Amino acid sequence: MSPPRLPQPLRGIVPPMVTPLTKGETLDATGVERLIEHILAGGVSGVFVLGTSGEGPALGFEVCKELIGLVVERVGGRVPVLVGISHSSMAESLALAQVACDAGAQAVVATPPYYYPLSQADLARYYERLAARSPLPLFLYNMPSHTKVGIELDTVRRLIDVPQIVGLKDSSANMIYFHHLLRLRRTRPDWTVLMGPEELLAASVLFGGDGGVCGGANLLPRLYTELFDAACRAELAKIRSLQDEVLQLAEVVYAIAGHGAAVTAGLKYALACLGIVADTLAQPFAPPPADSCQRIRRWLEQAASRWLAPIPALRD
Amino acid sequence: MSPPRLPQPLRGIVPPMVTPLTKGETLDATGVERLIEHILAGGVSGVFVLGTSGEGPALGFEVCKELIGLVVERVGGRVPVLVGISHSSMAESLALAQVACDAGAQAVVATPPYYYPLSQADLARYYERLAARSPLPLFLYNMPSHTKVGIELDTVRRLIDVPQIVGLKDSSANMIYFHHLLRLRRTRPDWTVLMGPEELLAASVLFGGDGGVCGGANLLPRLYTELFDAACRAELAKIRSLQDEVLQLAEVVYAIAGHGAAVTAGLKYALACLGIVADTLAQPFAPPPADSCQRIRRWLEQAASRWLAPIPALRD
Amino acid sequence: MSPPRLPQPLRGIVPPMVTPLTKGETLDATGVERLIEHILAGGVSGVFVLGTSGEGPALGFEVCKELIGLVVERVGGRVPVLVGISHSSMAESLALAQVACDAGAQAVVATPPYYYPLSQADLARYYERLAARSPLPLFLYNMPSHTKVGIELDTVRRLIDVPQIVGLKDSSANMIYFHHLLRLRRTRPDWTVLMGPEELLAASVLFGGDGGVCGGANLLPRLYTELFDAACRAELAKIRSLQDEVLQLAEVVYAIAGHGAAVTAGLKYALACLGIVADTLAQPFAPPPADSCQRIRRWLEQAASRWLAPIPALRD
Amino acid sequence: MSPPRLPQPLRGIVPPMVTPLTKGETLDATGVERLIEHILAGGVSGVFVLGTSGEGPALGFEVCKELIGLVVERVGGRVPVLVGISHSSMAESLALAQVACDAGAQAVVATPPYYYPLSQADLARYYERLAARSPLPLFLYNMPSHTKVGIELDTVRRLIDVPQIVGLKDSSANMIYFHHLLRLRRTRPDWTVLMGPEELLAASVLFGGDGGVCGGANLLPRLYTELFDAACRAELAKIRSLQDEVLQLAEVVYAIAGHGAAVTAGLKYALACLGIVADTLAQPFAPPPADSCQRIRRWLEQAASRWLAPIPALRD
Repeated sequence: MSPPRLPQPLRGIVPPMVTPLTKGETLDATGVERLIEHILAGGVSGVFVLGTSGEGPALGFEVCKELIGLVVERVGGRVPVLVGISHSSMAESLALAQVACDAGAQAVVATPPYYYPLSQADLARYYERLAARSPLPLFLYNMPSHTKVGIELDTVRRLIDVPQIVGLKDSSANMIYFHHLLRLRRTRPDWTVLMGPEELLAASVLFGGDGGVCGGANLLPRLYTELFDAACRAELAKIRSLQDEVLQLAEVVYAIAGHGAAVTAGLKYALACLGIVADTLAQPFAPPPADSCQRIRRWLEQAASRWLAPIPALRD
Repeated sequence: MSPPRLPQPLRGIVPPMVTPLTKGETLDATGVERLIEHILAGGVSGVFVLGTSGEGPALGFEVCKELIGLVVERVGGRVPVLVGISHSSMAESLALAQVACDAGAQAVVATPPYYYPLSQADLARYYERLAARSPLPLFLYNMPSHTKVGIELDTVRRLIDVPQIVGLKDSSANMIYFHHLLRLRRTRPDWTVLMGPEELLAASVLFGGDGGVCGGANLLPRLYTELFDAACRAELAKIRSLQDEVLQLAEVVYAIAGHGAAVTAGLKYALACLGIVADTLAQPFAPPPADSCQRIRRWLEQAASRWLAPIPALRD
Repeated sequence: MSPPRLPQPLRGIVPPMVTPLTKGETLDATGVERLIEHILAGGVSGVFVLGTSGEGPALGFEVCKELIGLVVERVGGRVPVLVGISHSSMAESLALAQVACDAGAQAVVATPPYYYPLSQADLARYYERLAARSPLPLFLYNMPSHTKVGIELDTVRRLIDVPQIVGLKDSSANMIYFHHLLRLRRTRPDWTVLMGPEELLAASVLFGGDGGVCGGANLLPRLYTELFDAACRAELAKIRSLQDEVLQLAEVVYAIAGHGAAVTAGLKYALACLGIVADTLAQPFAPPPADSCQRIRRWLEQAASRWLAPIPALRD
Repeated sequence: MSPPRLPQPLRGIVPPMVTPLTKGETLDATGVERLIEHILAGGVSGVFVLGTSGEGPALGFEVCKELIGLVVERVGGRVPVLVGISHSSMAESLALAQVACDAGAQAVVATPPYYYPLSQADLARYYERLAARSPLPLFLYNMPSHTKVGIELDTVRRLIDVPQIVGLKDSSANMIYFHHLLRLRRTRPDWTVLMGPEELLAASVLFGGDGGVCGGANLLPRLYTELFDAACRAELAKIRSLQDEVLQLAEVVYAIAGHGAAVTAGLKYALACLGIVADTLAQPFAPPPADSCQRIRRWLEQAASRWLAPIPALRD
């Protein structure tokens, strides 16, 4: 079977896969396999590994390398695999991009380098050079809450004609910015514009966005693919009803006060209830506190019966 | 010769060494040797490699490894070598700490991990675990402008009794914080408290600080060691006069608007004028613009005649 | 004629009226009258004076008082008049609320007090006490970019049952927050939820919001009322087309770099081209620079022909 | 007796007087009198009313007016009276400046207007126009934590030659900035540079600053005047010892988590223990919680015996 092409634009739900880890902080290969099948069964359009939810920046290079190989192999060309290469060092990003290319992934995704406080000129230069050397097509990843600097519209305007740059994932949660992005990409309709925060998936698709990188699609992939489809068809009543489920999930699973990786912590705990992966997080993060876990379990009992078949029995 | 002990506390000037690079972004070994001799001739108390001025977070792992080995070898035990291991991944920080230990360095220095927005509880857990696994004594490195999170006083209070943690470098530029730090460390007088911003070196030493990690000491090391000595002896007139030279250096060499690594860019350009290292920066940064270069040269012509012997002829 | 009731919820477009000023910084009463007729002709649902676009916080008390009286009189009960009472002092906010009540306005609108950095507990206490003493129904006004503190969801949850608090205007531009707001107000369906940034009007109404406080409705009121109607009817094609015009307006009229009151500056300049008000701003702000003015004029020539009848000749 | 001149520069301790209020939020005139005598007995060089600690921005205009008149009268020319006129509206600032002038105050003090997010160009224009119209000499007040914008060095450079602007109070807590300020004012040696945060008073005076606007000098004025004198004479041992007392006061009296006006809350509570003023704060702030009050009392029992004579019995 020949490797899958990267659709341009790439439309639909591309879950930012959490990275299954053992207690000893090595990769949980069996967990990876279970999670991939769970996600792909939900009708997703791709898999994105080593993003923010995937704890990419918190993992060591060797674990990243092992994960990429395993995911590409197990996905087996059913959907494209996108690989996060975000790093504070361009050299390290390129090393990871080469690993992704050698393994057979379809694209790479990079936030701005996140240590030095870059100006927009620094940032444009960064992406131009990264794209020139990247062995795979590159998605920009706008994530100002974590990288301090955002990719401003004028910078996107400068980068949108670089052939090797094929799209942007916007996790700024700034819908004004997103609306202007959609206008910008009219000059390059093969460019992909994906929404980060899942609470904004529906609105973004209604106005012309290509889909979402929804963390919750690790857990309930079908909720997100159905919401995407409803948004594509502008079925307002269905959108509002599914949107409400997304908001509930976010309120219960992600809202862990004072936790630097709350989204991943909540998702891994819920996935552990389903027996898919352990709730182990990369250093230095801890699983959710007991009261959050209880809320997540209670909610999952209801949600799983609507969205997962066969209905799973939750684990302790 | 046996490896040097790490003085506790470590007092004096510990320059954050810039990393000499070739145009091809490999290590410039000859530049490293020249720079080490230039710095050590100024009477410094240690060398800190791979810090913020050293572009540590922007360099690839292989260059870091090569640099550590070379610096430890060339310093040859004359002063302690501190190695920056700041990273968004604890696993990678520990890998670099092992390299530093194997090479014979005396200590490691780590900022908070700088991608996820950590809470203070996350941060305390991070340092406790890093210290428990680090093969070398660990300095905390407070750098909120780059890492988003600062190491709050209550967190320092929790960490100050961890034996493997031996001090803190404070680059917050917050002197209120620094005064409280000095009070905190009374319970552990072997703890080192070093000032980051060189404009604050003198004031910090007057109130009991141990010294500074002054970027400008790459260039004019003796200016900083003399200022440190004057501060230790509370010679106010001399302090004010030298302080003024430090402020001038900062105003001319560091003030490059819209440059994410302005301090290093200015320092490398000035060092290139002296023929010590090239002005090549790690990706994606560019050397200073022409007008900044002119101001730096003009200033350096004066400053070099006061602080460097024999007086160097500047290169083009 | 009896004074108009405040509809609960208040639905539709409620322009944040700019405040017409003479060169001498007194109120331009004739401009006020022209502007009110211009706005009301566009089918709006209310008028909001002394908001951010209305320069409320930059005006003196006497001008505010005069404006309130004049607006209430000229509107003459055709639509409700909402009065901004935002201030750093609750006493001054209440003094202005009394003026609004005495003049016959229908409601007041208050941001958090904007000097001291309030905690959420401080903020909840502020609104409870303000509501208890306000002679008119009170809208919360969430504007974190200007007031530093936002009104967090838990604080809204605490305030939503205070009878005198009748709604919230959200200018955070945070659509995740807005979606959660809409869920919150299900417990009080008479509560009004209005969107601040006009780029987000359509999306907010599609998901259940009540309308918008659109600055651009000072200029082209019918564009916004038509967009609101299209959103109420979920006419996607029309929404996208009108949304595009809103984005163009924003891009041309509001984008004045380095101007602390850019939106008002652009709006007043465009309104001056139409002969409705002068482009004088409250201290210390200057009209747009020449290049911005040219762009605004060029755009206005096209836009006016679509949205204003009879088509106006632009003034110099 | 003729009104006192404003010394240029103004050197020494200028306490930012808290504003005594009754439970009914009117001015407590008797408290004002007691507080003035308490402060003046400590050897201060001036009194600053309606600053941040004085709750100026949270008070109504009438209370401000009454306070100014009362303070000028009771101080009776013994020291200069500086009046805070910070406001989001220049018109209101000027109205208050006129009140101050008519009452016989010596100078006014203004932060940047604090609602709109000003650029440096807006800010420079603001101060130029304010100075041109102000009936009294004007101090700039740099307070970025409250006003969002700071007064950058280039803006100070532009303003330093405006005759009516006579100095700057720096509450940025940024000592790098402060050192550059001191260099700047060499071109105008009659300009006053005062430090805001009292933890930085000693260091600022050692390097040439003129004194401090120390909140704690409401409570223990002699601690601050002695520290100022010791700093003027560069008596390091005495400085360190008094500095330690200042840090203790700050740690105990000001550190009230989650309180938007913590400094004033702590000061008023401590002053209430001494029977000087009530602990009533302007809306919406509450007195400190019980545990903070206990810590303050315990500390005050010790500190009062060292710094107040005759030693007061604390009130319940």
